[in-house]
Amino acid sequence: MLRWLSPPAGPAIELLDQTRLPAQEAIVTCTDVPALVDAISRLVVRGAPLLGVAGAYGVALAAAVGGDVRAAAAAISRARPTAVNLAWGVSRALAAYEGALESGGAEPGQEPAARAALAEARAIAAADAAASAAMAAHGLELVPAGARILTHCNTGSLVSAGEGTAFAVILAAHRAGRLVQLWVGETRPLLQGSRLTAYEAGRAGIPHAVLADGAAASLMASGQVDLVLTGADRIAADGSVANKVGTYGLAVLARHHQVPFVVVAPESTVDADTPDGAAIPVEQRSAQEVVTLAGQSVAPAGTAAYNPAFDVTPPDLITAIVTELGVIEPVTAGNLRVLGAGSGRFADPKPPPTWNDEDYEGSRAGRR
Amino acid sequence: MLRWLSPPAGPAIELLDQTRLPAQEAIVTCTDVPALVDAISRLVVRGAPLLGVAGAYGVALAAAVGGDVRAAAAAISRARPTAVNLAWGVSRALAAYEGALESGGAEPGQEPAARAALAEARAIAAADAAASAAMAAHGLELVPAGARILTHCNTGSLVSAGEGTAFAVILAAHRAGRLVQLWVGETRPLLQGSRLTAYEAGRAGIPHAVLADGAAASLMASGQVDLVLTGADRIAADGSVANKVGTYGLAVLARHHQVPFVVVAPESTVDADTPDGAAIPVEQRSAQEVVTLAGQSVAPAGTAAYNPAFDVTPPDLITAIVTELGVIEPVTAGNLRVLGAGSGRFADPKPPPTWNDEDYEGSRAGRR
Repeated sequence: MLRWLSPPAGPAIELLDQTRLPAQEAIVTCTDVPALVDAISRLVVRGAPLLGVAGAYGVALAAAVGGDVRAAAAAISRARPTAVNLAWGVSRALAAYEGALESGGAEPGQEPAARAALAEARAIAAADAAASAAMAAHGLELVPAGARILTHCNTGSLVSAGEGTAFAVILAAHRAGRLVQLWVGETRPLLQGSRLTAYEAGRAGIPHAVLADGAAASLMASGQVDLVLTGADRIAADGSVANKVGTYGLAVLARHHQVPFVVVAPESTVDADTPDGAAIPVEQRSAQEVVTLAGQSVAPAGTAAYNPAFDVTPPDLITAIVTELGVIEPVTAGNLRVLGAGSGRFADPKPPPTWNDEDYEGSRAGRR
Repeated sequence: MLRWLSPPAGPAIELLDQTRLPAQEAIVTCTDVPALVDAISRLVVRGAPLLGVAGAYGVALAAAVGGDVRAAAAAISRARPTAVNLAWGVSRALAAYEGALESGGAEPGQEPAARAALAEARAIAAADAAASAAMAAHGLELVPAGARILTHCNTGSLVSAGEGTAFAVILAAHRAGRLVQLWVGETRPLLQGSRLTAYEAGRAGIPHAVLADGAAASLMASGQVDLVLTGADRIAADGSVANKVGTYGLAVLARHHQVPFVVVAPESTVDADTPDGAAIPVEQRSAQEVVTLAGQSVAPAGTAAYNPAFDVTPPDLITAIVTELGVIEPVTAGNLRVLGAGSGRFADPKPPPTWNDEDYEGSRAGRR
């Protein structure tokens, strides 16, 4: 959840600190770009769609406070190298900023260009909320009655300007009376499943239970999973999906147990410039995330760790990819291209007229 | 690690509290059976082979302190229903106790019967140490030069009167210069991998790194795993293996990536009375283990959890089973029977002559 503060309170970006949930609902206020870069890299704010929104607001913040907006944009993009939405949101807002500079002949940092960057960030947030609703509608078609759904990581309104991606489909299934049970993989090392998805499921009144990631296999073997739904951090042109580490293992298990495995992600996650899974850079994160938990050591001091943030699932293990434009099934480069070609990628970026600076823009549509 | 204390310090059983490792090396002293039952159910002492040893010493303790030894034996067996070694060790010591009662015409609780139970417990510990060495020798044949081995849970000298099961093979491979890297799955929820196996690997000087259980899939996909080695809590007559939750998922992943998956367990783990995997009772443990960690909540209060202690791997996913009697490959009911038939199951239960009450009997052979 993300909120833009205009002057006199701002310019600033307020973020709900996801690293403190569910124990605390703490707000981190970023008044400059280094603070935002730090928040992004520490996962205070995370999740593909919201990173796009945060990246764009970051450029708006850089423009509002003055200085080298292009350098600031590059620094924000580098904060999470695998997350294509972050770079995408940054480049969108930067293009709006530079376009306004050129057309207005203004100097860098002057107000019209800063306003253009902010308007673009708001447009991205509005489009993200609309995309959530569309993904939910398309994804619902794939959910059978009486479904027991397994999900991984966190894909709801905490990571979206709307109701999210996979979690938006889960919410739609719940409202439609089709969801009997939600299984939430805890998602080590950072426990986004148990900390965040269980929090969102509880607020929505969805029957749910968490499980250790290693328990998913026996859960599937016992016949208690009808569908696996996850989000995506990046989708290559061939349909390979980079998502939170553990996703690929679930896809292999789903195939072994003949359970459909469906990825839900906005069209902006599809990166046509990345030809295949091997071309997706996978961020290796600190061993500390694995060997400590909640500040306590869970391994002897100095223990090394293998800690990739993401893994890559090849298209042949994915039953379908749901975007705001529709359902891609089977997952092939051709089908991805055909669906994406019609999109124009948020062709109408106008913000909704009732938008208000002081609202939680990043969470508004997702709160009820 | 387990130590029997004779009078005047005892009778008592000292246990290294595995729930406190690696932060603390704390000792729990059980002076009666309820304390031992509590320690077993809380996983202060755990691991298939050592549970057999602990169960037998528990009967010796019951006999030494007096009271209803048969009822005490039943209570110890019930402390962990899936672990067949526990019931096996209990029944061995109880048979020795009751045999001595009958042959001597003594009254329950009298010294000769109590001594017989203690002698049987010591014999089981000695046989376990010998079995570890034999498993290590047989298992080493399956380890290629330059091996990168993935293991799960904890199977070393912490859970054995010897060097353990899978970990004994790992140690043998390390000493033979064949082990390049040990990958340690952290093994949520109780983190026996990162807490205990990393501790044992560090003490042995083995190059190792821990990983979240969900990261095993991408590690295999990257070609960095040559062999998966795990222990077993119970092996059914058809070769189905019950082991720490997460094992079955690793077996599916290993098959998908064409990596050999080998189970190392003493012959006492094979339960001829359990026909197949479906007949193995799987202990469901408290949600607290999943939703809290190191005493801190990692999910909203009241969150439900799916928390089976074990899962069951079918024989067709297991490349080989290594026992102290040899290597079973392929894993079939017939091959299990043929190898087991020659064993007489620890036919010579005499304790080694140098055994000393005050030693750490459960860990002696495993310490260097």
